[in-house]
Amino acid sequence: VGRFRDSEHQHTRYNPLRDDWVLVSAHRVKRPWQGQLEKPPPEDVPRWDPNNPLCPGATRVNGEVNPQYEGTFVFPNDFPALQPDAPEPGDSDHPLFRAAAARGVCKVMCFHPWSDLTLPLMSLAEIRAVIDAWAELAAELGASYPWVQIFENKGAMMGCSNPHPHCQVWASSFLPNEARLEDRTQRQHLRQHGMPMLLEYAEQEAHRKERLVVENADWLVVVPYWATWPYQTLLLPRRHVCRLQDLHEGERDSLASIMQRLLIKYDNLFEVSFPYSMGWHGAPTGPYLEEDCGHWQLHAHYYPPLLRSATIRKFMVGYEMLAQAQRDLTPEQAAERLRSLPEVHYKQRSK
Amino acid sequence: VGRFRDSEHQHTRYNPLRDDWVLVSAHRVKRPWQGQLEKPPPEDVPRWDPNNPLCPGATRVNGEVNPQYEGTFVFPNDFPALQPDAPEPGDSDHPLFRAAAARGVCKVMCFHPWSDLTLPLMSLAEIRAVIDAWAELAAELGASYPWVQIFENKGAMMGCSNPHPHCQVWASSFLPNEARLEDRTQRQHLRQHGMPMLLEYAEQEAHRKERLVVENADWLVVVPYWATWPYQTLLLPRRHVCRLQDLHEGERDSLASIMQRLLIKYDNLFEVSFPYSMGWHGAPTGPYLEEDCGHWQLHAHYYPPLLRSATIRKFMVGYEMLAQAQRDLTPEQAAERLRSLPEVHYKQRSK
Ligand SMILES: O=P(O)(O)O[C@H]1O[C@H](CO)[C@@H](O)[C@H](O)[C@H]1O
Ligand SMILES: O=P(O)(O)O[C@H]1O[C@H](CO)[C@@H](O)[C@H](O)[C@H]1O
Repeated sequence: VGRFRDSEHQHTRYNPLRDDWVLVSAHRVKRPWQGQLEKPPPEDVPRWDPNNPLCPGATRVNGEVNPQYEGTFVFPNDFPALQPDAPEPGDSDHPLFRAAAARGVCKVMCFHPWSDLTLPLMSLAEIRAVIDAWAELAAELGASYPWVQIFENKGAMMGCSNPHPHCQVWASSFLPNEARLEDRTQRQHLRQHGMPMLLEYAEQEAHRKERLVVENADWLVVVPYWATWPYQTLLLPRRHVCRLQDLHEGERDSLASIMQRLLIKYDNLFEVSFPYSMGWHGAPTGPYLEEDCGHWQLHAHYYPPLLRSATIRKFMVGYEMLAQAQRDLTPEQAAERLRSLPEVHYKQRSK
Repeated sequence: VGRFRDSEHQHTRYNPLRDDWVLVSAHRVKRPWQGQLEKPPPEDVPRWDPNNPLCPGATRVNGEVNPQYEGTFVFPNDFPALQPDAPEPGDSDHPLFRAAAARGVCKVMCFHPWSDLTLPLMSLAEIRAVIDAWAELAAELGASYPWVQIFENKGAMMGCSNPHPHCQVWASSFLPNEARLEDRTQRQHLRQHGMPMLLEYAEQEAHRKERLVVENADWLVVVPYWATWPYQTLLLPRRHVCRLQDLHEGERDSLASIMQRLLIKYDNLFEVSFPYSMGWHGAPTGPYLEEDCGHWQLHAHYYPPLLRSATIRKFMVGYEMLAQAQRDLTPEQAAERLRSLPEVHYKQRSK
């Protein structure tokens, strides 16, 4: 059998934040792929299109005309999954048929007036403006709602139906599954180990280095030890921070910088505008603002689907849906690959 | 605000099998879709292709030549995620960095010698042969492995790289996440309510009828109250059955029949070979064969991605990955739609 090497020998790894496991079978990346190829993203997005409802000056489905905005721009989602005033479902008549009330708001935030930009191609000042807008919305909606989910679906592969750089913010009257899960695991870790889980984790990773992608004085990005998506990353502050709105001036600037560096590396990996879903998790808000949030640590998850190239993704299907996530390269291999990529965007390299 | 109606008013529903929630926002199906369109499956798959490693008589990557099989055919996966002999990872040096041993085997099972068939187009006797082969493999691998995951990825959209009708069987030395979860929730339900969860659930649904898709003397298929995928279904026996290998002769015949009826309806929904991932869950095996499995009930999950048409899928992305699954039509609407479809396959209708 021989000595264990994690790049050669399948094993499982524990995800302490979700209390579940991932199967790591690094030898599997060798198998040939004859399945579905993805369409690369369009290269010819017009900077301004009067028919694109996210553009400055365009008319949205509800007849409203967008202002000639010059920075970020926030407006209500025209097809919100959460509305503020849904009535309460009646009492359940059976424990296997339980429904609960759901209220909330859904907003869309444009990052920039131009449709042909993405975050990694924006300036530090422009990214900083996005961070400020996130923090502002998180505080505003968090004044009453328990959970404010900021997330970006980037690329058609991730269900994004509009190339204009934007994210969404869904605030809800309930703690969604992932929030409840991370609340429970972080609370338990603090109780058992006397230190917030992700603060301890960031310290460990800063020291171990093999899963680091980029770091600066305030932040670090790692491919987590328990990553499920091939190039999944976790963006963590070095300081104990509960929520986005708690970040200082300097931390916002260094966040803009580390996001830019990460996203340029992502685009450089397969020389394509890298698709992903990303989102922020921080301590719950609304009524929870009164409670101790010492176990929580602010963080962002990046979940990119690509595995081998701009057109070959990882499918999280049969075994993954029915049994357990499985990955085809080790987190250390993914981190090394990302770490070694240049920090100048492939579109901006002088030829 | 008015009276609550679940087809109009967003709400959340509890999934007792996974101990989590889904957000149901049925009004959202009205929003227009301008995002990615999927490629419909190829219509011109050759019945036999010597270069297709799943065909009778073809040579596989390891140089082996497939027999001229005439029914089902089982062989080892040439790129297995699980191998029988991986060495044990060393002890963890930190609670946030925990790895465990993973051993197992991965098999591929062809359903039929022809590449241009799918289960819904096969005869009852041919489907029955698949069920027998499943039960046999489940028993054989289950003699030593704790979990035997039988799953089918159907369609390129579900990561299936070969149109030949087949499924996979991955047996592991560990209980995967979904198995552990369903073990815990079913155990707790039996303890609290004195009846296996899914036996009680099947009785309730047989009586309530609004989520029924098809039923016969031994089986029923429902869009579960807590379904996340638009047309997700749950296939349940009416009798208390722990594992596939425990099914009687008559139950295997009636299973072939209900599978055929369900899968014909699925194909008829958008008049396309309906993509999905499906898989069987039953009581754990190997060392667990000695233990009481009274809380377990055998069942199959079908997870199909399509939402509106043969080319428009549901994307489970940003909000779903970071917060909570969200669906755009009610389970009752999905069940009604499936129920109303003919039980003759659209390709076999006389014109
Ligand atoms: O059928 P294949 O080619 O082995 O692989 C497919 O199913 C596996 C099990 O669900 C997944 O891990 C792969 O991502 C998917 O492409
Ligand atoms: O961006 P859209 O068009 O609102 O929608 C996209 O993101 C939503 C939130 O993750 C998902 O529910 C949709 O399935 C996806 O298509």
